[in-house]
Amino acid sequence: MVNSLGVVFGITTFGESHGEALGVVVDGVPAGLNIDEKYIQAQMDRRKPGKTALTTKRKENDIVHIYSGVFEGISTGTPIGMVIYNENQKSKDYDNIKDIFRPGHADMTYMAKYDHRDYRGGGRSSARETACRVAGGAIAKMILNRLDIEIQSGVSQIGDIKATNIDYSYADKSEIRSLDKDIEPSQIELIKETMRQKDSIGAVVKIKVRNCPVGLGEPIYHKLDGKLFEALGGLNAVKSVSIGAGADVGSMTGSQNNDSITADGFATNHSGGILGGISNGDDIDIEVCFKPTPSISKPQQTIDRHGESVLCEITGRHDPCVGIRGSIVCEAMVALVLVDMLLLNTTSKMANISKVYGTTQK
Amino acid sequence: MVNSLGVVFGITTFGESHGEALGVVVDGVPAGLNIDEKYIQAQMDRRKPGKTALTTKRKENDIVHIYSGVFEGISTGTPIGMVIYNENQKSKDYDNIKDIFRPGHADMTYMAKYDHRDYRGGGRSSARETACRVAGGAIAKMILNRLDIEIQSGVSQIGDIKATNIDYSYADKSEIRSLDKDIEPSQIELIKETMRQKDSIGAVVKIKVRNCPVGLGEPIYHKLDGKLFEALGGLNAVKSVSIGAGADVGSMTGSQNNDSITADGFATNHSGGILGGISNGDDIDIEVCFKPTPSISKPQQTIDRHGESVLCEITGRHDPCVGIRGSIVCEAMVALVLVDMLLLNTTSKMANISKVYGTTQK
Amino acid sequence: MVNSLGVVFGITTFGESHGEALGVVVDGVPAGLNIDEKYIQAQMDRRKPGKTALTTKRKENDIVHIYSGVFEGISTGTPIGMVIYNENQKSKDYDNIKDIFRPGHADMTYMAKYDHRDYRGGGRSSARETACRVAGGAIAKMILNRLDIEIQSGVSQIGDIKATNIDYSYADKSEIRSLDKDIEPSQIELIKETMRQKDSIGAVVKIKVRNCPVGLGEPIYHKLDGKLFEALGGLNAVKSVSIGAGADVGSMTGSQNNDSITADGFATNHSGGILGGISNGDDIDIEVCFKPTPSISKPQQTIDRHGESVLCEITGRHDPCVGIRGSIVCEAMVALVLVDMLLLNTTSKMANISKVYGTTQK
Amino acid sequence: MVNSLGVVFGITTFGESHGEALGVVVDGVPAGLNIDEKYIQAQMDRRKPGKTALTTKRKENDIVHIYSGVFEGISTGTPIGMVIYNENQKSKDYDNIKDIFRPGHADMTYMAKYDHRDYRGGGRSSARETACRVAGGAIAKMILNRLDIEIQSGVSQIGDIKATNIDYSYADKSEIRSLDKDIEPSQIELIKETMRQKDSIGAVVKIKVRNCPVGLGEPIYHKLDGKLFEALGGLNAVKSVSIGAGADVGSMTGSQNNDSITADGFATNHSGGILGGISNGDDIDIEVCFKPTPSISKPQQTIDRHGESVLCEITGRHDPCVGIRGSIVCEAMVALVLVDMLLLNTTSKMANISKVYGTTQK
Repeated sequence: MVNSLGVVFGITTFGESHGEALGVVVDGVPAGLNIDEKYIQAQMDRRKPGKTALTTKRKENDIVHIYSGVFEGISTGTPIGMVIYNENQKSKDYDNIKDIFRPGHADMTYMAKYDHRDYRGGGRSSARETACRVAGGAIAKMILNRLDIEIQSGVSQIGDIKATNIDYSYADKSEIRSLDKDIEPSQIELIKETMRQKDSIGAVVKIKVRNCPVGLGEPIYHKLDGKLFEALGGLNAVKSVSIGAGADVGSMTGSQNNDSITADGFATNHSGGILGGISNGDDIDIEVCFKPTPSISKPQQTIDRHGESVLCEITGRHDPCVGIRGSIVCEAMVALVLVDMLLLNTTSKMANISKVYGTTQK
Repeated sequence: MVNSLGVVFGITTFGESHGEALGVVVDGVPAGLNIDEKYIQAQMDRRKPGKTALTTKRKENDIVHIYSGVFEGISTGTPIGMVIYNENQKSKDYDNIKDIFRPGHADMTYMAKYDHRDYRGGGRSSARETACRVAGGAIAKMILNRLDIEIQSGVSQIGDIKATNIDYSYADKSEIRSLDKDIEPSQIELIKETMRQKDSIGAVVKIKVRNCPVGLGEPIYHKLDGKLFEALGGLNAVKSVSIGAGADVGSMTGSQNNDSITADGFATNHSGGILGGISNGDDIDIEVCFKPTPSISKPQQTIDRHGESVLCEITGRHDPCVGIRGSIVCEAMVALVLVDMLLLNTTSKMANISKVYGTTQK
Repeated sequence: MVNSLGVVFGITTFGESHGEALGVVVDGVPAGLNIDEKYIQAQMDRRKPGKTALTTKRKENDIVHIYSGVFEGISTGTPIGMVIYNENQKSKDYDNIKDIFRPGHADMTYMAKYDHRDYRGGGRSSARETACRVAGGAIAKMILNRLDIEIQSGVSQIGDIKATNIDYSYADKSEIRSLDKDIEPSQIELIKETMRQKDSIGAVVKIKVRNCPVGLGEPIYHKLDGKLFEALGGLNAVKSVSIGAGADVGSMTGSQNNDSITADGFATNHSGGILGGISNGDDIDIEVCFKPTPSISKPQQTIDRHGESVLCEITGRHDPCVGIRGSIVCEAMVALVLVDMLLLNTTSKMANISKVYGTTQK
Repeated sequence: MVNSLGVVFGITTFGESHGEALGVVVDGVPAGLNIDEKYIQAQMDRRKPGKTALTTKRKENDIVHIYSGVFEGISTGTPIGMVIYNENQKSKDYDNIKDIFRPGHADMTYMAKYDHRDYRGGGRSSARETACRVAGGAIAKMILNRLDIEIQSGVSQIGDIKATNIDYSYADKSEIRSLDKDIEPSQIELIKETMRQKDSIGAVVKIKVRNCPVGLGEPIYHKLDGKLFEALGGLNAVKSVSIGAGADVGSMTGSQNNDSITADGFATNHSGGILGGISNGDDIDIEVCFKPTPSISKPQQTIDRHGESVLCEITGRHDPCVGIRGSIVCEAMVALVLVDMLLLNTTSKMANISKVYGTTQK
């Protein structure tokens, strides 16, 4: 159904920004996985709002309640249902915009599609829903961890300020998940200036997957790259997704772009670790461009639900740069896609079937 | 299943580059649609190889045989099965590369995943399969035509040469589907030079959808943009997909990027016609970057299936710039996604259910 | 994914018998539906245990908490997440059987498949999960109610005692959901005798759908009958499902079985309201056979997880006749299937597309 | 999509009774399977019409053309596309019924749903489509054969004449696929008498699966029994499906019905080899009731598409007892379901993931 992600492994979510709770059902988790609740909570904490002055002030503890699928700390193979209660809804904040279509938001399109909407905090269209993705992604990461597959992410660009030396190990130490320690101070300054201007700013996020097995991806309508494009391109605020050399390929020649193959592996990695929709064992390199948070307190021209022109001034608590916390969500999405592909790939050849069912091959 | 695209409307395909035939099953076509076989063939002709000296010399007439789902020229609501016979397979061309992994190709990953592959012309990984997508897309376009929804595409960039004035109406007149008549000659010259160098060149394709109804897209795991990212990002050679302002959003502020709303519509269209994963009625603007064709006749370093280093010289008939014919495939993919979304959206609200079933609403 | 039911409308559930909570996500509910929480609770109450001495003594209030998808009492078109907390888990009851495979239960197969299981009350395999189906089915019924489509059910047979005069209006008044007031006393007596014998008894349930529109069902791999067979045949304890004349067709001739068609409709209804997988407007008649509850307190021969023979005496609180409460679950399943088919059918013909999008048909 | 069967392995089909060709795409076939075309053709021959005087006289050779997915006789893991050309369409036979709704047929419901239909031979609703299922099922059987899983079927009842001693090994030798050599002559006589009466007759088919591994089935919305109910209940003419003790469970007690478990296995097999939706290793026993062929040459009362009463006399070539050839189709359906379940089950536990990816489990 259209509210789920994945084929044999994936998530179904529910919940709105200002409802009582959000939830996620993770289906297809193999039995026998140690479910470390602290690890899940740690992933939630990486995304949660209110940690620094440079993200939204909305405080949410984002405590994950696991209601099923785990027994004595180990997955049972049945659906893992998790619920996250909303704690800090201030619905009143939204009274002044309930009849207004905020520019850059889904207010107008939800109204057109459904004729009825929960306007508080954007309802279902709120980035708050991504808490569910991170909870589900944490389960996926635990599976990937078992296979030593690692996913890292960070912010390479904020506004015009771009990283020059990418260091994935630095992001978790940075208040803004910056990938470049030297550039970070000017990126932080740009965010602060943006906040003073009552504005917001765009960002570019990079994600890297290390140690991905060869063979993941189901050509040709569930390619690994196709599904990554969807999973990341379907995130709020994302307007561009690239893999490997990305947009640069448009101006390259074949002899420049093709990655030569040597006995030791690929000489370059313009492919970003994916050939023909299937992982080739090299690092998977992805770049995602986030638009600036549409909620800004600068006055903006818009219309109300009756089509009348109005001036819109958004109060409330918003991220000045949605890409920062977005990078954690990107990791979760990549993890969810990879596990689905990992499980789908187990049946790619008869030799694997034999490994599982142990039969004598005729 | 993983070899299909779409939820209530879509395609399932089969076939390899050098097999006897390719085929596509189009499911979910509403009954009562006039199926104009000439229109389908015209769409096929737009993509087919061998038309100019600037694309592959492989000659394929790509005649579509409709075997089901149409009776007396009108769709019956049952699956439309179409078969395209391969006419011009020269399997011999591939004898010299059957044990070699061509750089930039899926040879290596298919072998790793399946341990057995049809190496002739890349087998299933060949762009030849896109003929099926265009045939299916032609059916989708006939539905869109009924609603006056129009899709156009063309090439905006070849190598470093970029269009400055985009004119979608020109592409169908251009040998290279250029969107800019003034820039076209230098783009053509670049292709010719590339061919002389036994090399290939990348390209950027633009797609525009006009008159798309408001409300298409199923948040939040089957968003319109998410599915477009997948459909286009899953095409051979595509390494980057952008919607609206695309990668530029990374360096914009919210006040720059947000599209003000007036009584007459949006003042700008940075969103590319999609907000919150749902069409907003404005033009849908997409940009897709194609890598240069990996098959080049310049010698390249690679390995064979035994891991031994070899020099690879690809003969055969290849497009110097795969993005040109790729733009037609992009149109097909967009059409397929749009029709699925159009049909899914019919049940977004109870008022629509009443329109169809004509009941008195209590 | 395999833990969901439905294509454009349906449910995804989570939860075990003795976990903290169960939950259901209902996807595809059109916006604009009045969500009457009392109606949902009333449906839950029809199924809930502990109401009479003739069903299990486990007391569960089965209060449904709606956490999303509804705003100001009206559906928003987004996923409806509902959670039901378990109140009366007595996990201790199961200590004595945690290493034993109860005959007729899923204990052995879950262990074989997953190597790890929540043995308390059968875990995920417990009929307790059907509470989620009834909650989801209540949403479906609200949609059907809008179209005056009615689903009724009851018990026609308990053990050897069969109803002779079927009266669907009586079932809701009967403690055992009997369809025949005259036969009911002897059916009740049989249940009591069964309980005295520390045994359980099988039952046959009948379901009738009235006023179903013509045209529901998507041939030929999502037929209305095929999906009803699945939805009902996939219920715990169900071993046989029949539609219309059911098993009797095996001994009929074509001239007996074919339903003649007159200007006033079908002369008979051996088809059970479905022809070629599509509803024909006549009543949909279904019969479902439930096996006796496998949990009985009579001693039974079985093995433990080490393969050793043991005698198994099941204590705890079990229905003597699972078919009784099962009939309510059958209604829910039929409702879920019908709404999915209702929504899918909106796009069966171009004329419907026009009704929704209001375009001039060329 | 609704025209496909299966999750990771399955079929998508196209084609009508009197179109140019039928086709089937088999997705999810693991690479490395020897594809024995003679075996496929032999399965087709078991189903094909025109073999005896007791089935339809329509002659179809049902030659299967494999167009993809197989290279050098071995599956490549890509979709296997197969086409079967119709050879013996006599469309003229149907001129007299093109405006008439034949009793017991889908004519009326297709017309209501689609407003347009291919009336020749029932179009898509024809049992001719099952040729595709048998072709796809043959691929599935080749996979099952590798694991020594065997499926057998035959006719246990024709009209009132029931087998008393079931012998699956006899069916393939019997002109009517009878399971009981002693009863067969009277069953044949009944068919002949039915033909003399210009009528048709119902039948009951039994299917047995031997050596099925424990653990197949994905609870609780893709149970093995649920999917078998659907796959078989969705076949033309099937009105009842039972597993194990079937309808008899309604009159049994728990102590009678529960299968005791001993160190050597189950003492009885009332469960039909499935517990909690998962195979338990015992034989899977299924019973399917086929209605008599609706096409009979006796005059019948019906209406035409304008609602006028008419008398309908069906000429043409029809099976007197559709259950006979139906038993072969049942085998195919069971095979298709089993392979999907077999592949899905490979990821049920982390231990299997390790077997495939060979990692050290932390």
